[in-house]
Amino acid sequence: MPVGTQATIKGLRNEAVEELGAEILLANTYHLYLRPGHELVRKLGGLHKFMSWNRAILTDSGGFQVFSLSELRKVTEEGVRFRSHIDGSEHLLTPEKAAEIQLALGSDIAMVLDECIETPAPRDKADSALRRTTQWARRARKYFLEQQDRTGDLKQWQFGIVQGATFADLRCESTHQLLEIDFPGYAIGGLAVGEPHEVTCEMTAEVTGLLPQDRLRYLMGVGKPEQIAEYVALGIDMMDCVLPTRAARHACLYTSRGRVLIKNARYAEDQNPIDPQCQCSVCRRYTRAYLRHLFAAGELTAAILATHHNVHFYLDIMRQIREAIEFGNLAKFSSEMRAKYAAGMA
Amino acid sequence: MPVGTQATIKGLRNEAVEELGAEILLANTYHLYLRPGHELVRKLGGLHKFMSWNRAILTDSGGFQVFSLSELRKVTEEGVRFRSHIDGSEHLLTPEKAAEIQLALGSDIAMVLDECIETPAPRDKADSALRRTTQWARRARKYFLEQQDRTGDLKQWQFGIVQGATFADLRCESTHQLLEIDFPGYAIGGLAVGEPHEVTCEMTAEVTGLLPQDRLRYLMGVGKPEQIAEYVALGIDMMDCVLPTRAARHACLYTSRGRVLIKNARYAEDQNPIDPQCQCSVCRRYTRAYLRHLFAAGELTAAILATHHNVHFYLDIMRQIREAIEFGNLAKFSSEMRAKYAAGMA
Repeated sequence: MPVGTQATIKGLRNEAVEELGAEILLANTYHLYLRPGHELVRKLGGLHKFMSWNRAILTDSGGFQVFSLSELRKVTEEGVRFRSHIDGSEHLLTPEKAAEIQLALGSDIAMVLDECIETPAPRDKADSALRRTTQWARRARKYFLEQQDRTGDLKQWQFGIVQGATFADLRCESTHQLLEIDFPGYAIGGLAVGEPHEVTCEMTAEVTGLLPQDRLRYLMGVGKPEQIAEYVALGIDMMDCVLPTRAARHACLYTSRGRVLIKNARYAEDQNPIDPQCQCSVCRRYTRAYLRHLFAAGELTAAILATHHNVHFYLDIMRQIREAIEFGNLAKFSSEMRAKYAAGMA
Repeated sequence: MPVGTQATIKGLRNEAVEELGAEILLANTYHLYLRPGHELVRKLGGLHKFMSWNRAILTDSGGFQVFSLSELRKVTEEGVRFRSHIDGSEHLLTPEKAAEIQLALGSDIAMVLDECIETPAPRDKADSALRRTTQWARRARKYFLEQQDRTGDLKQWQFGIVQGATFADLRCESTHQLLEIDFPGYAIGGLAVGEPHEVTCEMTAEVTGLLPQDRLRYLMGVGKPEQIAEYVALGIDMMDCVLPTRAARHACLYTSRGRVLIKNARYAEDQNPIDPQCQCSVCRRYTRAYLRHLFAAGELTAAILATHHNVHFYLDIMRQIREAIEFGNLAKFSSEMRAKYAAGMA
């Protein structure tokens, strides 16, 4: 899922995102709650209508941003009190409030509020965050189902979030507790936040091993190009990551042969496309030399073209993964990707 | 002509500019000379190929930017010595050099180097700048024709530039001198730089009254939406202006009913398009409320959508002007535009 934090993927018109074939994007509840405000979005017909996007939208709970962006946050049983990073105003986000905001936004998939902790976390801290996350998930689920009952609008799905830091037994405990509450999909949160990649994989495997086959599995906030197939091999269906869009704005382009840092002087006269094997509309028309110039000159168009290419590259990885699964060679595809990206820059 | 200073219109892919129907754009010699350098562009096949733009390009001479952007400029008979605004490096721009750079860029229309002076200018200063501009135009023309003779490549056109500040007799003198040199087109420079609009019109009329019917007339660096038709009525064929693109990035949108400052709170819940009468792809899909949100949130996409709309608006003015001329009601169209924009915001 490409990330459209504030109801847009930075640098792409929806027309471009559609052309790229994205079927779902992620929008951030924390940001949209603060600006333009969920009540405004509700009044204007929901997020799909507000941003003119007819395909699926997943909204996070806002929890991650409260814990990473806002100031003076204070976690209690009730929820998390915080100050806006925009204007310093004080807000209280509870499990019920996070669900309410997302119902107002009208996303297709909503996430429960979870407690996010800093890593590496000591066991007791991870343990108590897990317990609170489960309690909050129970309250969020109850509120959500009551609201759906009340309105009769059953369109939105609500996912639970597994926590437990880097402790396998805590991850399992969290999973079992959420399975008991019963969600149509389960996310794995609090990973890929600094721990070694092997640990991310290990924790992911612990959780996916317990999840039923018929429920969606979403690994939050990943990943690097060479890791995507690994996560899929571990049983993950959905991922979101700012990497393709953020890297693009910083002149880092992903290609079938590795990363291209396009500002590098070696590309000054390079008349090849970013990636000769890429079929995206940027690679079909523009050269590396031109892209390099646009970045050197600080032009807006640089971000537009680079973002378009990188999002295409990520969506293409998923297309290749689906094909690899069909032909039974996902492991081979995965190790090829690792080899390309281990080799460094193209 | 939309302005593509550094070989791109800020915020628009070429695909968008083509969709908008622009047949020619302006690129800046000063900027492209300094970065990426005209020799690089020549080596890569010229500006059209470098930026992947198959329609027409007009390049200015670099003179205006040398006089407005660079430091420590010193004008002599030979040319103008200046320091780059990017890295402080020293350069000498002569009439021959300006022609050579533009031949390397391979634009369709090149401009001669002229001496630009600050306004309001005293008569003696305007007079000597005019004389130097004519001498430089003679040298530029000679060099240009010699090069075309030598290479046999006759694709590029070179335009002269009329100077003379706000003195009608100097404008006439400049025009006569340039007519003697003989160019396929004539630009009027040094106007719309602070003098009253009536004076701009008066000077323009003085010059166009002397120009032959079969030569192109280009008024440089104009204008506001409500002025375009006036200039056409005075005999102008071509104009360039950063206004539609720059205003767009500052959240000022042009509409058939006047300016819309989209950040204004009154648009927060406005589900209308920017301009209900506009047929552009932005107005067909997005609301004012969404645009306002994107600007408030500082999103790149705001500039993309706003620029697209404003460039459409400007090109549409020209389409309406052509139609008005055909139906014999240019004066009516012109006064309607003035009335709309005098009324202030929509």
